[in-house]
This record gives sequence, C-alpha cells and structure tokens, in this order.
Amino acid sequence: MLTEAARLAGFDLNQPCGGQGRCGRCAVIVDEARSAVRRRSTIRLDPADVAAGYALACQTVVEGDAWVTIPPQQAIERKLVTQKAAARVEVPFVYDPEQHQGIRRYFLRLDSPDLSDQTDDWARVLRGLATAGVVRPQASLQVLRSLPGILRGEDGRNGQEEASPADIWHEGPTPWEVTAVVALDSWDRPDGPPQLLAILPGDRTDRNLGAAIDIGTTTVSVWLVDLESGEVVSQVADYNGQIARGEDVISRIIYAKKEGRLEEIQRLVTGTINRLLEAACKQVNATPDEIFKLTIAGNPTMMHLLLAIPPESIRLAPYVPVVNHVPTLTAGELGLAAHPQAVVDCLPGIASYVGADISAGVLSTKMDEADELTLFIDVGTNGETVLGNADWLVTCACSAGPAFEGAGVEHGMRATTGAIEEVWISSDTLEPTYRVIGRGEEKPKGICGSGLLSLLAEMFVTGVIDKAGNPQVGASPRIREGEHGPEYVVAWGSETAHGRDIVITKVDIDNLMRAKAAIYAGFNVMAQSVGVDLADVSQMLIGGSFGQYINVEKAVQIGLLPDLPAPPGS
Amino acid sequence: MLTEAARLAGFDLNQPCGGQGRCGRCAVIVDEARSAVRRRSTIRLDPADVAAGYALACQTVVEGDAWVTIPPQQAIERKLVTQKAAARVEVPFVYDPEQHQGIRRYFLRLDSPDLSDQTDDWARVLRGLATAGVVRPQASLQVLRSLPGILRGEDGRNGQEEASPADIWHEGPTPWEVTAVVALDSWDRPDGPPQLLAILPGDRTDRNLGAAIDIGTTTVSVWLVDLESGEVVSQVADYNGQIARGEDVISRIIYAKKEGRLEEIQRLVTGTINRLLEAACKQVNATPDEIFKLTIAGNPTMMHLLLAIPPESIRLAPYVPVVNHVPTLTAGELGLAAHPQAVVDCLPGIASYVGADISAGVLSTKMDEADELTLFIDVGTNGETVLGNADWLVTCACSAGPAFEGAGVEHGMRATTGAIEEVWISSDTLEPTYRVIGRGEEKPKGICGSGLLSLLAEMFVTGVIDKAGNPQVGASPRIREGEHGPEYVVAWGSETAHGRDIVITKVDIDNLMRAKAAIYAGFNVMAQSVGVDLADVSQMLIGGSFGQYINVEKAVQIGLLPDLPAPPGS
Repeated sequence: MLTEAARLAGFDLNQPCGGQGRCGRCAVIVDEARSAVRRRSTIRLDPADVAAGYALACQTVVEGDAWVTIPPQQAIERKLVTQKAAARVEVPFVYDPEQHQGIRRYFLRLDSPDLSDQTDDWARVLRGLATAGVVRPQASLQVLRSLPGILRGEDGRNGQEEASPADIWHEGPTPWEVTAVVALDSWDRPDGPPQLLAILPGDRTDRNLGAAIDIGTTTVSVWLVDLESGEVVSQVADYNGQIARGEDVISRIIYAKKEGRLEEIQRLVTGTINRLLEAACKQVNATPDEIFKLTIAGNPTMMHLLLAIPPESIRLAPYVPVVNHVPTLTAGELGLAAHPQAVVDCLPGIASYVGADISAGVLSTKMDEADELTLFIDVGTNGETVLGNADWLVTCACSAGPAFEGAGVEHGMRATTGAIEEVWISSDTLEPTYRVIGRGEEKPKGICGSGLLSLLAEMFVTGVIDKAGNPQVGASPRIREGEHGPEYVVAWGSETAHGRDIVITKVDIDNLMRAKAAIYAGFNVMAQSVGVDLADVSQMLIGGSFGQYINVEKAVQIGLLPDLPAPPGS
Repeated sequence: MLTEAARLAGFDLNQPCGGQGRCGRCAVIVDEARSAVRRRSTIRLDPADVAAGYALACQTVVEGDAWVTIPPQQAIERKLVTQKAAARVEVPFVYDPEQHQGIRRYFLRLDSPDLSDQTDDWARVLRGLATAGVVRPQASLQVLRSLPGILRGEDGRNGQEEASPADIWHEGPTPWEVTAVVALDSWDRPDGPPQLLAILPGDRTDRNLGAAIDIGTTTVSVWLVDLESGEVVSQVADYNGQIARGEDVISRIIYAKKEGRLEEIQRLVTGTINRLLEAACKQVNATPDEIFKLTIAGNPTMMHLLLAIPPESIRLAPYVPVVNHVPTLTAGELGLAAHPQAVVDCLPGIASYVGADISAGVLSTKMDEADELTLFIDVGTNGETVLGNADWLVTCACSAGPAFEGAGVEHGMRATTGAIEEVWISSDTLEPTYRVIGRGEEKPKGICGSGLLSLLAEMFVTGVIDKAGNPQVGASPRIREGEHGPEYVVAWGSETAHGRDIVITKVDIDNLMRAKAAIYAGFNVMAQSVGVDLADVSQMLIGGSFGQYINVEKAVQIGLLPDLPAPPGS
C-alpha cells in the first residue's frame, strides 16, 4: 500500500479510519505518467479528482515506481467538503421579485399642500402611488397615524411636539419625499388589493429585506433574504426555546393545555425567532424593522403554537388541525421582530402531522413537477417522507425524536463551532479521529447530528457496538462502564473545550436507533401502502439542514436511508 | 277674546306667552256649527287641527254664541309635540340589508370530523359557508383561535381545559352547530372578499345588531339598529368626555399635541361611546359583543382624535386633514365596546372643517339627489351648511361654540330629563312659563339647547333684553344684577330640582349670540360666494339632534336661520 511506502519514506499519512478507505483523509496525488499503481477503492473520491490523479493512499497498491505528491491536509478537507456540497440537490431557481415576494419600495416626491391644494395626506400619498402604478392600495391605522409626521419631515416626533431649536439645525429628511413600502399581494390574496405597509422618510429603496423562517420542534432557522435579488444575505439557527417545555410535539401540546401556557409557549418560540432575526440582521448591519416580509414553515403543531391556536385536536382522535391554510398575518399581531406591518405568510400544511415544512420541501425541490419517481425525506424531530412525482404525491410522518438534532443526547449539540461533525474509528485500534466545526484549532464541545450519525455508523462497522447497539465494554479502554451504563469515549477531557470526556452512552445509542428505525419504518410502510418498490425510486432528496450535512453512505450503513442503487456515474 | 270669556265663566286658561298667540298652550276646540268666532291667528296650530275646530283662545274673538271644549292640558301638549314632529323631514328610506350593512348571520350544521374526514376545522367551516353561498371568506387570527373550542361545544374554555364532571352534566351548545357572522362587504371594500367576523356557538341568528355613532364635539349620540329590519331599537346620548380637555376642536387639537395626550383624548371619547353602547344595549337586553357593525360620523377633528391620528395639520395652514377616507377598521383596534371583530366604517370627510357628519347628513337627506335648491344646516359646536342639489353641492363651516348644546352656559344642560326645553315669557308681566323634559311633574335642573333658543327669542320679543342682548335690569324682579353681571331668572330656587335659581346671564346671552351670528354669517357668505340668493332656496333642512327639536319660528326670530318664505300650505 502507498501508506506503507510513505511511512518507509518518512511520511506518516493521516488515516483516521484505520486504513479502510472510509474517511478519504489519506488522499494523495499520483503522477500517473511516471507511476505504476492500482487503486482498489476510490469510494471517497470524486470521479473528476480520480481523473486528475487523486488516490486514497490506504487503498492504492504500489506496483512499481511511483511519483506521489502529498497535498496539505487543508486542501483535502476542502475537497471532501466540496464533494459533499456537490451531492446536494441544487434546484434551478429563477427569482422573480414581481412574482415571488411582492414587496416593493417606491420613492415618492409628493407636492406639498397649499391653500389651492388642500388634499388630505392619505389622498396625496394615493396620488403619488398611482403615478407609480399602484392603484387603490389599502393602509392600516398605524400607517395613517404615522403619515403627518413623516410627510412633514418630523419623523420620530410624529408631529406631536414643536421642533426644538436643535432640531431646526439638524439636517432631517426632506419633507414630502418618502418611500412607500407596498405588498402587491400575499399568498392568500394573489389578486391584491395592494397593501401600503409603511411610509418611510426619504429615499429608502436601497435595501428590501425579507426573512424565511423554519420552525423545527428542536431547531429554528432563519434566513435573511434580499427580496430584489432573491439572495440569502445571512443565515442563523438555534434551539427552539420551547424545548424546555417538552421535546416532542405531543408533550408540548399537553403542556399548552393549561391556562396561560399556550401564550407562554408562543412567547418562547417568538423569543427564539426574534433573537435569530436580530442576529441575522446584525450580520448585514440591518435592523429588524427593515424586514417587511416573513415566510414561515413548520410542522402543524409548531404553526399552531406560533399562532397561539389551541393545538389539542392534533393530538386527539380523529387528529385534525384547526387550520392548514393560515391567512396572511402581520408581524405585529404575532409579536415578531420585524416591521409591525410586515406581511407574514405561513406556508400551508397538509394534515395534522405533515405540515408547512413539508410543503416548503416539495415546492423548493420541485418534485411536484418531476417526471421521475422521487422520495423526499425530511429528518428532524419528526421524520416526514413524500413519495411521488408530477402526477401524484403521497406523504407520511413518524415521530423520531430530537436525537439526530443533537438534543436528548448526553453530549449532543447543534451544528455550530466546537461540534464534532464527523468521526472515523480505526478498526484495528478502535481509536477515533474526528473533525470539529470551526476555523481550525477548535477544541470539541460536543457532537452534532451528522457527527452522531457518523459515529453510530463507525461504531457499528468497527464493532465498537453490536447489532443491538451494545458497546463492547473492555474491547478498548475507550469502551467502559459510565455513570449511565456502557459508553464509548469519543474525546478525552484533555482534548476538549470544557475538560470533560465527550462520550456516547448506551442510552444515546438507543435514542438514535429508535429515531432511525422510526424514519425507516415510515417510508417503507408508505411505499408498501401505495404498492411502490423503493428500488423503483429514481431520486432521493433529503431536506432540512440535516440533509445538507448528512453522509448518505453512513446513513445507509446504519439503516436510516434505504439502500437504493447508486445513481449512474457515481 | 275667548280667554276673557272663559275667565268670566270661571275657567282660567293657560297662557304662558301672555296671550300673544306664540305658545299655543291655550288651544281649545270650537263647535263651529253652533258658534260665531273669528280666529286672528292660528300660527301654532296645524291646518288639519284648525279644520277640526281648534282655535287659540287668546287669538279668537267671540262674535256671538260660542260652544267651546277645553281639552286636557296633556292633549294639547301632545298635539304640539306631534305638530313639531310633523315638521321634521322624513326621508323615504327603503332598508335593504343586502345592500346596506352587509352583516349576515348563518346557522351552520357541520359534519363532525372522523378518521375518514380529517379536514381541518377552518376548511370545514369554509365548506359550510360555501353551501350558504359565502365563497372564499377571510378570517382573522382571533377567529381561528376560537374555532376548536366553539366547534366542539367547549365555548368559554376554548379547548384549553379538560371538561370537569360538572360540565358534562351542564347542557352546553351542540358541537358542530354554530352561527357564522359574516361581513359581506364594507364601504371601502364594496366587492368583498367577505370577512368571517366570528363563529358563535349554537343558533344565534335571532338578532343582528349594529350601531350608528355620531361624535359631536360636545355631544355623542348612539343609535342601536336591528340590521335585519333597519329599525332603531334604542338611542342614547351624552356629553363627549373630551369636553374637559377643551370646548372646541381647536383647543382639543392643541391639548393633544403633548406626549401621551393624543391617546388620553382618544380614551376619553371611546369611554363615552362605550358607556353609551352599554346603555343602548341594556335597553334591549343585549350585550355589546352582539354588535358586529359600527358606522361612525363626526367632524374631521373628532374622527382624527377617535383614531388617535395626529390632528395638528387641521389647525395649521394650509389646513389639511391626515385622512378623509378612513379605511375599514375593527372595534378591537379602536377599543370600542362591540365584538372585537366588529366592522367599523367611518363615513368619509370632505375637508378639514367639513366632516363625515356632514356627509352623513347629505346622504340621509338625499339632497344630493334633489332637483330643488336645498340648504342643509347642521348646528352643533361647529355650524356646517351645504347648499346645492343633484347637480352641485357647496359647503362651508363656521365655529359656533357649544352654547346651543347647553355647554359653556351657566345653567346649560343636555336635552334629558329635567331640562327646560321651551320657554314663554308674558309680555305684560315678563313672567316665564316653561316646559320640562320628563314624565310630568319633573322639576327643572337646567336649560337645554332648544330651551336656550326659545328663551333667547322670548327675551328679545318681550323686551327682557335689548337688540345688543343686554338684560333690562329693574324692568322685573327677575331681571337683576347677578354674580356674573346682569341676568334673568327663569326658575326660582323653590321650583327647581336643586333648590338654586336657574338663570341666564349676560355672558350666556353673548355666547349664544356669537354662536348664532357665526352660523348665520356662514351660510350667507357661502350663498354669496356662489351667487345664490337665499330666497331661491326651495327647502331648508336642519340636521342633528338640534334640528330635531328646534323651533324654526324662534330660530328665525333671533336670526339663527334665514327668513325664507314659508312653504306653500303652511
């Protein structure tokens, strides 16, 4: 093997997986023209990279002279990440602000009133908007209340106080020059009438922000979007503040039953969303009141709790939600950190356990327009799957629990700095190697979802655990009896950020196995019920932030995803 | 005279005006066939009554035998009131609930959900409404929040608590039988879409209430209306709670300028409206949350203050209101005592000093459809006039002050029980007689607007005051120097409810004269400015509650109204 030849030459190549060709970390570049080598496996390498000379040192037999370049470890890491990114489904997305979000900003120069033109302020704004092509817009009381102050350049004082001498010298906005923020439509009002959301002083057409919000039972994600270009300008995520009131939807529904708790649990999630909106805005030097559009997805329970609509009927037979198609609302009435008049469009749900998050997934992957039989899987606290194509779609949900989101696991954490995101275990020594999210020399704090999936697969393949998930205590000093039963030490306290051992326990493993079993059972039952063989599925799409980071190979190894034939060319 | 003949016969006829034929209180019935009498004047009598034999005893010369019946005083009073009512303009009004108010109630029997029909609650309601012909209605978050509890017959508990054993035996509403209250349209949304305002448990189609509200600077009036028949079911009025913050619109605008005061002054008027709505409902055993439609009129300042829209620009050149055409709102957002989702339609204003109250007057008198040249006068704290017909309308406003509404006058009061509403003064003795609002033996508490107008005219005609309004102190013990200058005693303390003299002072008289002068000047300037001679006016309409009670003859006497030729036949 090239690894042995390198060692003999004084180069100790990185072999986290113990030389089994699983991790791809020992990639080297072979000068093919001058070398005689045979690649036994290139499983972690991109075909293009193989063509360019890349080989896995642990899987390459030296059959004669060999000219080999060892690339810097960083370059290999980047390659692996790039390779993973390439596996993601990039749905072609043509952004048309006219069609998609309908929030427009118009700079208006209005005539100032005089004794020959005593038109009222609101009619004056309507006149200005009509010249911009916006006809008969509606406005809220809040907009009307702000009009006199803003039109007259008394922004902030709202026309309620006389100008102080200091104000006179302060260069304020020019009176009668304002920006109108208009929602041309919303999803439940496709034909208008347009809504005037706000009148802002001066020219404020430079930026037009919206936010997309995914409320997971465990994790809430917020994307700040430039509504002119459709580009995501910042993205943040955090645990849903409701977790402390129950880890799954059922326990939250039960919690919310008592007097006052529905409002409490609503405040918990709006609290999380608002912190995230603030953070996302801060990254681009914006303030939340610049946001005039919020599009929200989540499972039906999350949507009911966000709206403080009693969710009890979701839990009890015959399991009906109060509302699937939520009307368009405003940020103000939900207490969300955006402009109070911002349009809030909730995506439509399908049934009590298949919600707006799945509608969002289907819409964004365009599987509803696909010819091929497609399987869409969204792994979260619940696992939902959709099977079908342009002709038909069938869906199913199963309760997986938050293990794969890093919650309910002893050393679980979200996929942020300090999280172990991938693990390899040497089959010889059972010693682990791991990669930590961060800029470089980050010490680990815990293990995130993809790290747990990777760890579970590695422990299974290397025999750290048996088929039933029992750690083989004694097979290595790392496999030991811990406080909560058998456990495997992923990182010793001397290596970690907090000085404590990072372990995975039998209880964690059971949680993870139950989660993966639930999801696997879900799409199997669904496929059987419509008489489809999973082998006939042409493409499998994995949604959510989990899908973004999942190692498909390892997910198949542990039986989370079905073992479909690899797509041609891979 | 008949009065003398009666006295000789031992009958002392009532002659409040001192036998001058002005008050009509000495009406008697002459048996014409057997009597020889000559009527010098029948000015206070209806032509029909004269034909039936009525005569004013003080104005009837006995020329031979006379057979005369003296009716009970009550019958005469009733005749006078009836006569006054007959003078009111009764605009033919065909009420069409489909066309006019657009609030409909539908009783729905919905299918209950089961495992074969897991339609969500909201879609189930939509299905029920569609069978009633209501398509694609919109609903607020509040309605959605109430749905699960009301649909399942858990009204009041909102689905948040398990039923207690007591509840199980309590006969509640039948689940899935509900009443939908729908606003088919509103004035700024004539083409819909319909709005579902509320879902109520059981069949609640028996009553459908709305309210009309007139916010005067001094007086607020509320009419409770049956929206099915268009009938007014109760009516109440009270002083506007804002009076303590300024008597006219200008002083209220100035008051509202300081931080927090706009909201304070809004709460003052909503407080008045809410007390009136409660009282109007109580009269018909209803509660305010049964009201689903409020139509509001008022002058522009009153409308701005109701909506907490800064009114400052109304006061300052070039005098533009913030909004004339207010969008449709909900009772909840204005804090009005009605169902929180009740539709609030504010009538449109015309300019800074001609408001929705005048639009209401023009619409209800249909002068905008009239062929004849019409003069519409609304006397209140401000006096507004409209001149024109179906082809053109011109309007004008002048500040009159609240004197004719009984405010700002020493013993002024609103037209309620205990108010002196009409006064006659004997030209011989200068002694007054008065009529008090009430069931009969009511003692006077003060003088209302129509009483003040009547008193002013009588004082002028009898010489109690001179042309400049100066009381002729010494001409009678009732004309004396009071604490605030010369005054006339209308009722001695021994006759009054509170034991104090009821007087009218020189200051009061000045206030009243300024008010009437302002109004008279207003429509004169307006008529001149469009080149119309007031003599060409075919009909004069007097709006407001003042118009309902005004004595036109006396109003002409004091120069409040123009002296137009009497209509033919009167």
